[in-house]
Order: sequence, then structure tokens, then C-alpha cells
Amino acid sequence: MKLYDFCRSSAAFRVRIALNLKGLSAEREFIHLRRNDQSTPEYLAVNPQGLVPALVDEGETLIQSLAIIEYLDETHGEPPLLPGHPADRARVRALAQIVACDIHPIDNLRVLRYLSKEFGQDEKGIERWFNHWIAEGFRAFEALIADNEQTGEFCHGDTPGLADICLYPQVVNSQRYSLDLSPYPTLKRIFDTCSKLPAFIKARPENQPDAE
Amino acid sequence: MKLYDFCRSSAAFRVRIALNLKGLSAEREFIHLRRNDQSTPEYLAVNPQGLVPALVDEGETLIQSLAIIEYLDETHGEPPLLPGHPADRARVRALAQIVACDIHPIDNLRVLRYLSKEFGQDEKGIERWFNHWIAEGFRAFEALIADNEQTGEFCHGDTPGLADICLYPQVVNSQRYSLDLSPYPTLKRIFDTCSKLPAFIKARPENQPDAE
Repeated sequence: MKLYDFCRSSAAFRVRIALNLKGLSAEREFIHLRRNDQSTPEYLAVNPQGLVPALVDEGETLIQSLAIIEYLDETHGEPPLLPGHPADRARVRALAQIVACDIHPIDNLRVLRYLSKEFGQDEKGIERWFNHWIAEGFRAFEALIADNEQTGEFCHGDTPGLADICLYPQVVNSQRYSLDLSPYPTLKRIFDTCSKLPAFIKARPENQPDAE
Repeated sequence: MKLYDFCRSSAAFRVRIALNLKGLSAEREFIHLRRNDQSTPEYLAVNPQGLVPALVDEGETLIQSLAIIEYLDETHGEPPLLPGHPADRARVRALAQIVACDIHPIDNLRVLRYLSKEFGQDEKGIERWFNHWIAEGFRAFEALIADNEQTGEFCHGDTPGLADICLYPQVVNSQRYSLDLSPYPTLKRIFDTCSKLPAFIKARPENQPDAE
């Protein structure tokens, strides 16, 4: 397997955690997003979307972090990253998608660049935008996991899964503009629990070979 | 089953298509997003995220359109909305997520409202933003489906599935500011094919009981 990766990409961070939880390793190629490596013809031939991550396995190039993680879960069953019952799977996927659809893409580098270049937003405007969408998502995330009997040590039960894999990088990301996490105590507790696990620690941006 | 729906929500539109393809029907409750029905305490108790759709089935409330559609596919197998092989499933999910993660949430009503109210963008700025993110996503989507042997009458093979379910409402949405579709001929061909199917036609905004 080969992973096209960037230390500071939250979406790539998710795939790194999933690989670690599965005990899988991948060759790595680093696509430096701030230097626009993602816009070279070479990388666009790998992923026409010009985003990371991309994973090459058995000759197939896979993109989109959630699709990649479900693929890893379907091809390497242990430990499972989704529960077995359809309604439980839907709960975990929905939590993951609150982050992966409704927070992260709105706060992604390319969007922040557009706000700055096209709409003339300064650092203060960007910070307000950035934290607004995280807070909106975390409020809903917290409401769904607090006082829910399916929440355990992790978002769903007592083993880490797809929801935790999406939550963890988003919380790390929220530290960029020092978002106050006190309104989200359950989310914070789960983040702290994940923070003790090697699979999550090893995947952190500062622990990557391309960290600056 | 009960679907919390809004005629003009692209995410709800996806679930309507999936229900139609599966031959399932659901009781409907309409949450008028422009009148802020989604922010009432009653609806926030259903979906703390304050978005549509939400689906109630067998006492469980499910949110996030992709999670709901995968649930429907797992609980009502025929016709399948995802192929059988993991790499093929990843391809279809990635196409779906290009729309559901990287186009639609950035162009969603709540985001456009923020740009208008907080950043003072006028209709012209909103239009530029709206079409920019659709064009970015459609460019990648087209590159992935053009000249790909797995593309058939639909995005993957000759039966409609999850990728088509996400693509179709996004193309309808792109007509809001008359985006030129000529750079995306394969995408346009698949849209036209879907446009002839009752499952897609019946799900269109103008064919809903809450259409204005």
C-alpha cells in the first residue's frame, strides 16, 4: 500500500489512525499542500481532486478518506471500525459525517484561501469562520453522544472506531485558534481517551516525517 | 418510516431518490429551512444538528444522508446501491463524497447566510462562491468517470447507485446560477439518463407536497 499524505491534513490524519488501528503500514509520499504539490500534473493524475489522502492498494487508487477507511475495514476486518448492526453503523457513520461533511470541508485550506483572496477576509475573519463551523458541529456531536447509552469510553462502545477517527483530528484542528472545548465535555473526554492510544499518537501531525 | 424532509434540500433529495429506488415509502414531515423550522426546540430534539434529512425507522432516529442511505441499503438489499467488491464500493463512495463532503456543505444555505450576514457578500459574491465549488467538484468528478471502464450508463455500471443519487441533486442545484455543464460531458450524460427515471423524477423538489 502507498499513502499520499500530508502531516497537517486532517483527512490524511484519519487514514493514518485507521492504518495504525488495523496494524497496517503503507509506503508514504508527502504532498505539501501549502507549497501546492497537490496541483502538479503528476499528483492530479493520482487524484484529480487535488486533495489528500489517496491510497494505492493492489493497483487501485482510492480517494476520499471515509471511502478509504471503509475499504480498509472491509478488506482488513480486525479490529472492526464500525459496529455490526445497521442502526449502530448509521449512528457511527453520522457522527463521522458531522465532522467529515459539515465541519472539515468548510474549514479546509482551499476554502480559507478563497475567503482571504477572493473575499478579502483578514486573519480575524478567518478565525471567526473557522471556529464558528467547528462549534456548530461540536454542539451537535456533543448532544448526540452525551447521555446516550451507546456512548462508552469512545463514541460508540468501548473500542475506537470511525467516529473517533474523525473526531480526533478535528479536535486537534480546533486548537489552531484555541476553541474553548468546555461546552463539549463528553467529546473532550473521548478526545483525552484517544490521546493515550499509540494509534492516535503516532498519527499526529508533529509525529510525521514531513512535520516542519 | 418517517422522513423529515424539505423540498429544496439536496441532502433530503438524495434520500428521497434512495427510497424510490428501493420501492419504499415513508411518512413525511416538512421542515421549512427558509422559515427556520430546523431551529425549533421540537426539531432540534429530533436532529440536534438542525439539518434535514432525518429518518425514523424502528424507533431509531438516523441523520446524515449518506449514513441513512447506507442504512437503507443494508436493511433493504434490493436493488443494491453499492457494488459488491471493496475497491468498487470505495470508488462509488468516493464519487458520492466528492459531492456530499466537498461541494454541497460549502454551498449549503447556512454557509451562504453566513457569507451574506457576517462577511457582507452580495448576490454576485454568493453566485461566484456557489459556482466555484460546484465547478471544482464537477471537474474532479468528470475526470474520474470519463474514459473509465467502470463507468456505464450510470456512474458505476448500468444501474443507478449511491454516486448517481448524490450527483443528480447537485446538478439540479447547479442550475440555480446557471452553471455551464459543457466541460462535464460524461456527468451531463449520466444526469440526463437519471432524468428519465421515475425514482429521480418523483424525488425532484418541484414534485414534493411542500413545493412552493
